[in-house]
Amino acid sequence: MAVEGKLRAAIVGSTGYGGVELIRLLQSHPKVEITSVISSSSAGAPIEEGFPHLTGIVERSLDGVDPAEIAGRADIVFTATPSGVSAKLVPQLLEAGLKVVDLSGDFRLKNGADYEQWYKHPAPADAYLEQAVYGLCEVFGERAAGAGFISNPGCYPTATLLGLIPAIEAGWIKPDSIIIDAKSGVSGAGRGTSLMVHFAEINENLKAYKINKHQHIPEIEQALSEIAGEQVTVTFTTHLVPMNRGIMSTMYAGMKGSYTEQDFVDLYRKYYAGRPYVRVRDAGIIPATKEVSGSNYCDIGFAADARTGRITIVSVIDNIVKGAAGQAIQNLNLMMGWEETLGLGYTPVYP
Amino acid sequence: MAVEGKLRAAIVGSTGYGGVELIRLLQSHPKVEITSVISSSSAGAPIEEGFPHLTGIVERSLDGVDPAEIAGRADIVFTATPSGVSAKLVPQLLEAGLKVVDLSGDFRLKNGADYEQWYKHPAPADAYLEQAVYGLCEVFGERAAGAGFISNPGCYPTATLLGLIPAIEAGWIKPDSIIIDAKSGVSGAGRGTSLMVHFAEINENLKAYKINKHQHIPEIEQALSEIAGEQVTVTFTTHLVPMNRGIMSTMYAGMKGSYTEQDFVDLYRKYYAGRPYVRVRDAGIIPATKEVSGSNYCDIGFAADARTGRITIVSVIDNIVKGAAGQAIQNLNLMMGWEETLGLGYTPVYP
Amino acid sequence: MAVEGKLRAAIVGSTGYGGVELIRLLQSHPKVEITSVISSSSAGAPIEEGFPHLTGIVERSLDGVDPAEIAGRADIVFTATPSGVSAKLVPQLLEAGLKVVDLSGDFRLKNGADYEQWYKHPAPADAYLEQAVYGLCEVFGERAAGAGFISNPGCYPTATLLGLIPAIEAGWIKPDSIIIDAKSGVSGAGRGTSLMVHFAEINENLKAYKINKHQHIPEIEQALSEIAGEQVTVTFTTHLVPMNRGIMSTMYAGMKGSYTEQDFVDLYRKYYAGRPYVRVRDAGIIPATKEVSGSNYCDIGFAADARTGRITIVSVIDNIVKGAAGQAIQNLNLMMGWEETLGLGYTPVYP
Amino acid sequence: MAVEGKLRAAIVGSTGYGGVELIRLLQSHPKVEITSVISSSSAGAPIEEGFPHLTGIVERSLDGVDPAEIAGRADIVFTATPSGVSAKLVPQLLEAGLKVVDLSGDFRLKNGADYEQWYKHPAPADAYLEQAVYGLCEVFGERAAGAGFISNPGCYPTATLLGLIPAIEAGWIKPDSIIIDAKSGVSGAGRGTSLMVHFAEINENLKAYKINKHQHIPEIEQALSEIAGEQVTVTFTTHLVPMNRGIMSTMYAGMKGSYTEQDFVDLYRKYYAGRPYVRVRDAGIIPATKEVSGSNYCDIGFAADARTGRITIVSVIDNIVKGAAGQAIQNLNLMMGWEETLGLGYTPVYP
Repeated sequence: MAVEGKLRAAIVGSTGYGGVELIRLLQSHPKVEITSVISSSSAGAPIEEGFPHLTGIVERSLDGVDPAEIAGRADIVFTATPSGVSAKLVPQLLEAGLKVVDLSGDFRLKNGADYEQWYKHPAPADAYLEQAVYGLCEVFGERAAGAGFISNPGCYPTATLLGLIPAIEAGWIKPDSIIIDAKSGVSGAGRGTSLMVHFAEINENLKAYKINKHQHIPEIEQALSEIAGEQVTVTFTTHLVPMNRGIMSTMYAGMKGSYTEQDFVDLYRKYYAGRPYVRVRDAGIIPATKEVSGSNYCDIGFAADARTGRITIVSVIDNIVKGAAGQAIQNLNLMMGWEETLGLGYTPVYP
Repeated sequence: MAVEGKLRAAIVGSTGYGGVELIRLLQSHPKVEITSVISSSSAGAPIEEGFPHLTGIVERSLDGVDPAEIAGRADIVFTATPSGVSAKLVPQLLEAGLKVVDLSGDFRLKNGADYEQWYKHPAPADAYLEQAVYGLCEVFGERAAGAGFISNPGCYPTATLLGLIPAIEAGWIKPDSIIIDAKSGVSGAGRGTSLMVHFAEINENLKAYKINKHQHIPEIEQALSEIAGEQVTVTFTTHLVPMNRGIMSTMYAGMKGSYTEQDFVDLYRKYYAGRPYVRVRDAGIIPATKEVSGSNYCDIGFAADARTGRITIVSVIDNIVKGAAGQAIQNLNLMMGWEETLGLGYTPVYP
Repeated sequence: MAVEGKLRAAIVGSTGYGGVELIRLLQSHPKVEITSVISSSSAGAPIEEGFPHLTGIVERSLDGVDPAEIAGRADIVFTATPSGVSAKLVPQLLEAGLKVVDLSGDFRLKNGADYEQWYKHPAPADAYLEQAVYGLCEVFGERAAGAGFISNPGCYPTATLLGLIPAIEAGWIKPDSIIIDAKSGVSGAGRGTSLMVHFAEINENLKAYKINKHQHIPEIEQALSEIAGEQVTVTFTTHLVPMNRGIMSTMYAGMKGSYTEQDFVDLYRKYYAGRPYVRVRDAGIIPATKEVSGSNYCDIGFAADARTGRITIVSVIDNIVKGAAGQAIQNLNLMMGWEETLGLGYTPVYP
Repeated sequence: MAVEGKLRAAIVGSTGYGGVELIRLLQSHPKVEITSVISSSSAGAPIEEGFPHLTGIVERSLDGVDPAEIAGRADIVFTATPSGVSAKLVPQLLEAGLKVVDLSGDFRLKNGADYEQWYKHPAPADAYLEQAVYGLCEVFGERAAGAGFISNPGCYPTATLLGLIPAIEAGWIKPDSIIIDAKSGVSGAGRGTSLMVHFAEINENLKAYKINKHQHIPEIEQALSEIAGEQVTVTFTTHLVPMNRGIMSTMYAGMKGSYTEQDFVDLYRKYYAGRPYVRVRDAGIIPATKEVSGSNYCDIGFAADARTGRITIVSVIDNIVKGAAGQAIQNLNLMMGWEETLGLGYTPVYP
């Protein structure tokens, strides 16, 4: 059933927003053929039952989760499964000889004890944590080349790390001064039902949640610490904004020198030179979330304040694309040695 | 500067939502190269000044409106200009030897007097009104083949006509009983500023406007009358819904017989057989606007009521895609004899 | 604990939007003291746990549902309970000697068989259906005076009936031609969780649902038939709009004569003379839902169409106020012979 | 025409959101009679033309701006006018013997040079700047008693200062470490039309703006410096959130000791004891903006982080009520020696 010469991909977790976005994007990937869409909860049902927008586009029923069967149908698996589920499933898929890009948080932390503290699940075996390549493409992209198992970064960490790492690496900001005020659209909370995502509770409302307790904190600190060469601890707040898509990280740090906005623009443009999906905006221009909506871009802007000696960095992504499915495909392209942009295109959907 | 073998396209009206959506879609059209983006009001400015989401994607300044210059740079022009502007500009573009797809309403009505009554502008010369092919692709698509001048249908008429025409043609509904209750997202009002589109006035609000006075009424009646072979007069209400994109036409008509929903599904599927962008949904399934968002689809569903002898037909489109830029490109493809789907793809953006 | 001279009120169903709005409005009612807020599911919990906005305002825990206990604490009960629950509870409350205003649909239909067909629950005993006074204040208000048991109208029926009844009574419209295209904000769906009310599914979306199948249809037809003196059957569609509050009924009917908008304005103003909560808007003015938000108003506007001989009537309410809690309090005032406006005020919240 | 014994109030700037909210709230004030609603731009027009929700409630035409005439009709004037306009008008009103509560920013800064730097208008004369009482009710309320001229605080400063002052006064946080990440609904941008407030530009979008450049910065620093007894300089970012009402200030500061959330709760509850409109929430509870919507409350919550030694303080208000019209009325009540809550009530509108 597979198209000759194409990589056969399976998607596990096809009833969530990350899974369905993988379907949308892979539909236009020239070197990939989706050969299985998998859901443990809805196996056997036509996919359009849960996602009517796919009517006539994906005409297949959802498959069940059986690693051996998957290995017969696919070369690579995207696991867009909840935390705790991937921890158990991914080792089986790897043992079955499949390549894996995991979109859960289960393999992002190198230290299993950290995982258990923040995620409240048993950690996967250390061997798998070591094997997993943390796929922040623009920073660690060269590690993905030829890899068989990618741990796809979280949505908040993607926006945050891309906004902080060049300044950390250059030693321009004080690592112990970093405060991250992050805001997300509601799709980031997943498609599960709860009062927290009820329309009438979210609309005309702005909520802060999990202040200093979000499970993305150790992921951010792990990467920053590696870059800084010292332990970095951050203050991190997340907010829920009444919109479907988009993350903005507004980041504050003390500068170690008298840098201007243009200095930061130049530094970041040099750091991200040749990377198609980071747009360092001109000095004085602050990106808005809609300007990357539906696309794989991360846009970054700066405001330097001589009065306080602080830099404010604003980084925006589409949480389902660059923060999940898009970066997963970007990682696939890097794994396979393909052009980084295959299946991803460029132009955001506006408005 | 043009890519060899590609059709060179210019877009006039690049500071509106229709124009910028043409840019987004044409970016991925394999046979078209955008060679000029034109704005009378912002000539000389970089396009990203008004549309920051295009930063790094469309790196050109806006050109002015000079038909001779355009003819030197382009083979076809999309005019996404306001009513009254196209009436004057399009004849000049045609005289300069350009192909034109006009997205304004200026050339949709065959009778200039009707135009002047509903649009309150002087009508274009009859010769141009006659020459213009009304590009409702799934109904009059064969007229577009080889044409040099297409008048692209309005957003409300597209959703409405695709929902009514098969039943009218089959003689299943009473032409004098048609009531159309239409609802649109705010992008349909354009990007001009006014209190009517102020966020705080639209959000948490639902408004009806232009009841029985909307300029799309004669366009709908002209097409229905041609199909019915008799004068059709409709009741037509438009509403503004607090969302960016999407049109829903909820249509009511008395049935001439005892038809079921399945009868309608079968009739419409036969009518639209082979047309990739109309999805007639299964009996009992009513499409929602988000299910076509960002795509060129028109989805149609039915509810037949034996108690009243009426059929309710629900038709949804993305007003900027199938209701404007998408259908314009579909018309281009039909004009050129290309595959209907080039540059348009399929999968809606969800959520 | 009760304030001397005040009527003691209990609210059952205090964890839903109707119940909590009763609390908001009754807080400022000069002749009523809330003496119990009751929830079967959350008895014992502080009310601010579920509704943090009431922190420091309503400092009591939720009571359980025990009719005898309620009778000891209250003179009147508002039952904002789901369909099927009121059917069982209200008779017990009445037997315990309490006055009742029921906000569920369980006692609105005089014919138990109709109830069972549309609501799919066993109907209450006929004696209770007969005893219940259908509390559409501006039409049947005199029946409420001195009554002990009011069945509060549904949200859609309130907007719809107030918009149609004067024209039906005057014989100006054809009863068999009525088509009602209704739209509601999401709070009308209640506070229960489901995918249908997930923010990311509703936002940027417009859905039609329950076409010709909504349980408010027999309620509308029962009242219209009584006024018309003949059986009236309507076509009725409901839509879910991405906003919290508000209902708009856009209604279409064939006129029996050549009436103008001003004729309708005059007719309706005469009909509603002296009623503080219906605002018949000037000819040519169509009300929007936000113009009544947070208030007990029903605003009505007209568009007469000489071309088709049809009248379009637009009626808007706040679904939680005039469509539920506000009208319940208005009914209380009428029952007690108090001024109709006590506890209700006037000014909508804008924006 | 005035009601005997009531204070006669005029409102200047009745075509903006602050002015119209003053009308809503004063409608239910037992000791105030609105005797003039004034607009320079729309004098002579019925108020319902611009604000249809007031149809039948405020049946008067808008008056022009003539201080002598106003003095004949009113005892007190609320000036909800743009910056620069109040600077000229208020002195004339004061000279005419009127009491004034000014909602613009023109009289908040004691130093005229600061005003000119941040507001880019000529400053009012120093005598007026000195005379103006800065009306942050819960902090400087005793200064309002008997005053004739109140400068009403800005929306961002109200949320921010109420959230920071108790900790500053107690010496628990480091004044040079304060970072304020503020977010506002769109009504805060006023009712003027611009692309910035176009629905399709704001909806599904999150924007940061005026980073470190907002004119509310010197107002915040002036008050904090007075409390701290030293110059305080803050980092301040504002964001535009796709909702109508609401401000959240998320504030970060280094703690001078090892304080817990409960310590902060206790400190703030002691500071705000007896003040009806500040709700210090229980430890671990973070308020959301909807929980104060339509009300005069400021709700405050805390998250203390032992890992970083920082406190995160979240403060929410309704920007049009506590951030403008509500606090203006609260100031009126304090000026007149009335109960602080007259005309203001308590219960937020939810949802």
